[in-house]
Amino acid sequence: MKNIAVLGSTGSIGTQTLEVVRGYKDMFHISVLAANASDELLEKQIREFSPELAVLSDEAAYKRLKARYSGPTKLMGGRQAFVDAAAFPEADTVVTSMMGFAGLEPTMKALDARKDIALANKETLVVAGEIVMRRAAEQGVSILPVDSEHCAFFQCLQGEKRETIEKLLLTCSGGPFRGRKREELIGATKAQVLAHPTWNMGQKITVDSASLVNKGLEVIEAKWLYGVDYDQIQVVVHPQSIIHSMVQFCDGSVIAQLGCPDMKLPIQYALTYPTRQPSNFERLDFWKLKDLTFEEPDTETFKGLLFAYEAGRMGGSMPCVFNAANEVAVGAFLKGEIHFLDIYDIIEQTMLKRECVIEPTLEELFEEDAWARTYAASLLKK
Amino acid sequence: MKNIAVLGSTGSIGTQTLEVVRGYKDMFHISVLAANASDELLEKQIREFSPELAVLSDEAAYKRLKARYSGPTKLMGGRQAFVDAAAFPEADTVVTSMMGFAGLEPTMKALDARKDIALANKETLVVAGEIVMRRAAEQGVSILPVDSEHCAFFQCLQGEKRETIEKLLLTCSGGPFRGRKREELIGATKAQVLAHPTWNMGQKITVDSASLVNKGLEVIEAKWLYGVDYDQIQVVVHPQSIIHSMVQFCDGSVIAQLGCPDMKLPIQYALTYPTRQPSNFERLDFWKLKDLTFEEPDTETFKGLLFAYEAGRMGGSMPCVFNAANEVAVGAFLKGEIHFLDIYDIIEQTMLKRECVIEPTLEELFEEDAWARTYAASLLKK
Repeated sequence: MKNIAVLGSTGSIGTQTLEVVRGYKDMFHISVLAANASDELLEKQIREFSPELAVLSDEAAYKRLKARYSGPTKLMGGRQAFVDAAAFPEADTVVTSMMGFAGLEPTMKALDARKDIALANKETLVVAGEIVMRRAAEQGVSILPVDSEHCAFFQCLQGEKRETIEKLLLTCSGGPFRGRKREELIGATKAQVLAHPTWNMGQKITVDSASLVNKGLEVIEAKWLYGVDYDQIQVVVHPQSIIHSMVQFCDGSVIAQLGCPDMKLPIQYALTYPTRQPSNFERLDFWKLKDLTFEEPDTETFKGLLFAYEAGRMGGSMPCVFNAANEVAVGAFLKGEIHFLDIYDIIEQTMLKRECVIEPTLEELFEEDAWARTYAASLLKK
Repeated sequence: MKNIAVLGSTGSIGTQTLEVVRGYKDMFHISVLAANASDELLEKQIREFSPELAVLSDEAAYKRLKARYSGPTKLMGGRQAFVDAAAFPEADTVVTSMMGFAGLEPTMKALDARKDIALANKETLVVAGEIVMRRAAEQGVSILPVDSEHCAFFQCLQGEKRETIEKLLLTCSGGPFRGRKREELIGATKAQVLAHPTWNMGQKITVDSASLVNKGLEVIEAKWLYGVDYDQIQVVVHPQSIIHSMVQFCDGSVIAQLGCPDMKLPIQYALTYPTRQPSNFERLDFWKLKDLTFEEPDTETFKGLLFAYEAGRMGGSMPCVFNAANEVAVGAFLKGEIHFLDIYDIIEQTMLKRECVIEPTLEELFEEDAWARTYAASLLKK
């Protein structure tokens, strides 16, 4: 029986994690459910999964739930309670499905408490990959990727030696604007941006998929998870999202992982690893499958990918600044405050404005994040 | 240093094996070279690789070489010398790249002498899969598949548990006649049959690729190598020959092996396993790759696949009869004695004529093979 803490249980990955767990009640127990402000959904989840602890980061939401709920699950509220939930003593594995930079602190807390991490919060590795991977190694715990691409790499690397990796081939659907040029994206609406062709995801990541910032974050994530150079990571646009990613080895052989686009598969793999468990997820039918196609990404139009490689290659604090600027810009875009293409300008101007801190401490990263948010926010007003 | 015996060194796989070995002279030593009748090519190979022993199965060819060659390599001639070469004391691995049923006896000899097998002679497993796999297990030796599809399965299964296999997805180029109907194949010429779209191979296997008999042989080979049921093997036509085969696991995940169509890669993998060695083989370029497509095989037209599943499911001696009839029919086709479609009739009539021996001994399989050859030959005259 594996005890699981789900941080971000009411989001897209969190709810799908609970769907997976629902099918394997004899293998998994939910010890902790933690969310930001969705008190009604969290209450339903508490009633179904009876965790020992449930947390709402948002104080007002916590008070609403507290007023309604009287059951065996212990309720707590506030940001610190959310972070502390990551170290809940009985939990074996922490699913980090919260959003953005805010995932870093609880993930570090979980590592300090020697929890295995099912990592769905890629920003943790983007911002502090070196610190996080070192801490995981020191603690002897595993970081199991939940991102479909990184789970694909992980599956392709089973039974293989890391030093035989020649190249990671990171596939990318291309998002809703694949094939369009910059001038065609000037008036892009929120509805268009959110209409992802193959994956059904949260709003923030869907915007990032349209801008290719998400793929850029994944490049940096892959760099830290698999210890390769940026030159060894090649993004391949593959609009059908059937090949979830591939590894090319030193002998020229390529191993790929394929499947229907369904996040439940990588979630289950991360939870059941090192075994595979039978599932009733939809199967690929190769006799009916449409063509699989591949393209080079258009980084002149979709500069998110370019900026990510730049930030990653500069290293130090720059990926943190890149990510913070993007989080602010996407938030503003979702509120209708800026145009889609402004996201790139805000990222670029913020990165250009800040000097890179080499080998930053965790505290310095928090400072860089705060600075970048303030600076990016100031750009919104212009 | 691994000592290698190459049985069938002058054929397509044999010469490519020597190409691979040429690049790794510090890792591999050729102990034995054995061929059927190509004395001139064998002589060149002897001069380059200086094996301890060289054998020609054909007595006349042996006498020709013997008259010309005087060097340190010991020469032997005749079928028994060829079989005995499989047990050459200093050899660690025997590459079985000889053709057809004739590969069974030396392969058994190699197993008896506890050699690892790099198996390129699929007929060995088609005819006597149960006996061969049991003998390998008893002797504690490995059977490493050289067929590109089976090497793909083998690579996909690294780090995975056999019991989690749901399905083997065996890819198939479809051969030169893909998409044609039976009536379009009535006048098929030898030149058309030998014009394989993606793979450059020997003549016998190229005919088998056109008839899909080769894919049928591979189905039976896969069944024995990976211990699955026939229902778990699905043939997928994939004309580009980029995906070399795939494994679908019980959680729905599919792992695939991809590469340029080049037999040197699986040969090298079999020789260097369990490690991968750097190679300068051509790499796939996914930014330039054309579409990958998939189809259901047309088993009404290409009945070779159908007969193979039937023979495999009947089990016992029937795959041996199927294979022998095909070898006779293909030989006759290559000599211009029969039409392409006659191959199917000869296989079908031979299989229908013979009762299946359950759990045959090796001796019984030799009898069945001999009977089927005689019967199939008698059909040629009609």
